Amino acid sequence: MKFSIQRDRLIQSVQDVMKAISTRTTIPILTGIKIVATNEGVTLTGSDSDVSIESFIPKEEDGDELVEIHSTGGIVLQAKFFGEIVKKLPMDTVEMEVINQFQTVIRSGKAEFNLNGLDPEEYPHLPQISEENIIRIPTDILKNVIRQTVFAVSASETRPILTGVNWQLEGNKISCIATDSHRLAKRSAEVETTGDLQYNIVIPGKSLNELSKILDDTNEPVEIVITQNQILFKAKHLLFFSRLLEGNYPDTSRLIPSESKTELIINTKEFLQAIDRASLLAREGRNPNVVKLSTLSSGVIEISSNTPEVGKVVEQVQSNSIEGEDLKISFSAKYMMDALKALEGLEIKINFTGAMRPFIIHPMNDESIIQLILPVRTY
Amino acid sequence: MKFSIQRDRLIQSVQDVMKAISTRTTIPILTGIKIVATNEGVTLTGSDSDVSIESFIPKEEDGDELVEIHSTGGIVLQAKFFGEIVKKLPMDTVEMEVINQFQTVIRSGKAEFNLNGLDPEEYPHLPQISEENIIRIPTDILKNVIRQTVFAVSASETRPILTGVNWQLEGNKISCIATDSHRLAKRSAEVETTGDLQYNIVIPGKSLNELSKILDDTNEPVEIVITQNQILFKAKHLLFFSRLLEGNYPDTSRLIPSESKTELIINTKEFLQAIDRASLLAREGRNPNVVKLSTLSSGVIEISSNTPEVGKVVEQVQSNSIEGEDLKISFSAKYMMDALKALEGLEIKINFTGAMRPFIIHPMNDESIIQLILPVRTY
Repeated sequence: MKFSIQRDRLIQSVQDVMKAISTRTTIPILTGIKIVATNEGVTLTGSDSDVSIESFIPKEEDGDELVEIHSTGGIVLQAKFFGEIVKKLPMDTVEMEVINQFQTVIRSGKAEFNLNGLDPEEYPHLPQISEENIIRIPTDILKNVIRQTVFAVSASETRPILTGVNWQLEGNKISCIATDSHRLAKRSAEVETTGDLQYNIVIPGKSLNELSKILDDTNEPVEIVITQNQILFKAKHLLFFSRLLEGNYPDTSRLIPSESKTELIINTKEFLQAIDRASLLAREGRNPNVVKLSTLSSGVIEISSNTPEVGKVVEQVQSNSIEGEDLKISFSAKYMMDALKALEGLEIKINFTGAMRPFIIHPMNDESIIQLILPVRTY
Repeated sequence: MKFSIQRDRLIQSVQDVMKAISTRTTIPILTGIKIVATNEGVTLTGSDSDVSIESFIPKEEDGDELVEIHSTGGIVLQAKFFGEIVKKLPMDTVEMEVINQFQTVIRSGKAEFNLNGLDPEEYPHLPQISEENIIRIPTDILKNVIRQTVFAVSASETRPILTGVNWQLEGNKISCIATDSHRLAKRSAEVETTGDLQYNIVIPGKSLNELSKILDDTNEPVEIVITQNQILFKAKHLLFFSRLLEGNYPDTSRLIPSESKTELIINTKEFLQAIDRASLLAREGRNPNVVKLSTLSSGVIEISSNTPEVGKVVEQVQSNSIEGEDLKISFSAKYMMDALKALEGLEIKINFTGAMRPFIIHPMNDESIIQLILPVRTY
């Protein structure tokens, strides 16, 4: 293997595949990056066996020569060393060459590194996925869908299935649901499919977070292929594989209340900031992080919290409208702030069905996204 | 106590005095910020008993009204709560009022916080320092003097005196020295004094780091007053007190070699980057972080390192001149990079007196700063 490559493209690809590499792996070769040169270009692969990422650098793109291949072949190099080396090389071009055995020479300007590599034949094979059924979704919408749901997955391994996001595909509609059993986020979106597909899968939250980080902000479509236990996301020059979580995701449809006893319409930012301030004094004590919302007259609500050892805070916020029954309800400030940050739009609508029942939040005139929060009992 | 104050000025002062406050203090009241309102303005104080910082906000500055005093008085408020509250208040103006006992109301817009405070009479008094003898130094020069020396203090408490920077004042010249016994940094500067002063003190490195962070980038003078066991830095609206370290600082003057057997003149940035690259493969093994410098012919030097398990790196750098004996020497890449980053100027001069003797680095044509490094014996 011998090639010359543009350094900034190499850095970008290394950073992308590094997202799959864990230093805590039990399979030593997976601490490395696999580098393969063919006559078409150079492919880098990183994997922790749950997630695998493949990044391709073509020989030529938009008339620019990115890689010059002198001889094909492959090598596996320690990710932590190789990643730092390419970042600090002095020139815009890097030459890489495998010499006797798996010794690899990396040259740039007058700097010459000699790294001990590993046999690329010993690197695990990526899942083979047949690409018959393809789902297409614009990258920016996919990133939004992830952002608006993944924060609500469970951080605890008590019920492993809740650490993932449930994707339900039927016809041209995908519904994505995450819950940690105290709150729930649900977002649906239109997709394009190559047939009449139906899936009900659970994708690890961690995988979706990593995927979101390496996808560019573009409206180009991402292609998605789903198998029994794997999902593959295909973007330009990028393949992202994740295993799926095994088990049945709980049926969440009955959790979402359909009736409403109190309806509040309020400016998102003003409401978020008042909750944020009230949460400052709600860190300790018997109900950590809990704030109280009370409806007053003339469409005013009061946000408050009280930790006797520290002090108390109270703030009135003018809503745009309050309809229905008066209400006093307590909830986690963190869950409310997470939900509000995930929503878009200047105004939100909150539907309550009593102080002890879950309530739902969504942007005005947008039913594609719902945030649900369980209140906290305070005495 | 009751006053209204501009929020951004309050935030700035809180951030400054917070630098002195430690959550690990054994004196509970020192987790608080003391706030005192007089007819002149508002003074905030933070302290961990080693360092104390006082920040004053005058009633008026440059024609702007910063504070409106309704009644004088004082209070001590929990720093971690008060600091976060002022940052998140909704309006540009904040009203603070102490009501019954030490209850304090903080109002801004429609938000109202009620904090439990403590008696300001119980807050420890700051050191009383008589200001007969004053040393004056421009703020930007003081910050440079600190930056160019403090990194070389010892991180270990084995010899506590080496965790400080030794300041020697004689006439109008101050010499500042730091060493951890493997390397040494020395910087001298001109100062203005009110008399024929002579001091030899040791200031904790930690105090100087904090001081440097809160001083503005200006060439206005800082006034310095030194007593038996305290030093006071006075900048605009700011007092910074630090205790001094007790004990005798070692005599470092004999450490600095006066002769030179090999003199190397080289571009600072090219040399720094080559050392940085060589250090990438020098992390593990028997001599962690050690790189080797060898003189070749025609003014070329070679920087290299070798960790058999990982690989090796070698790079040639063209110097501007090499005079004297040929040399092969090994040293800590970290110490060299720290020293080079502390220097100013495009070119540096390094004087070696053999592979096993300390060597010195300084900018071309500038004797006010010296960096000294002890080499490492490699086999």
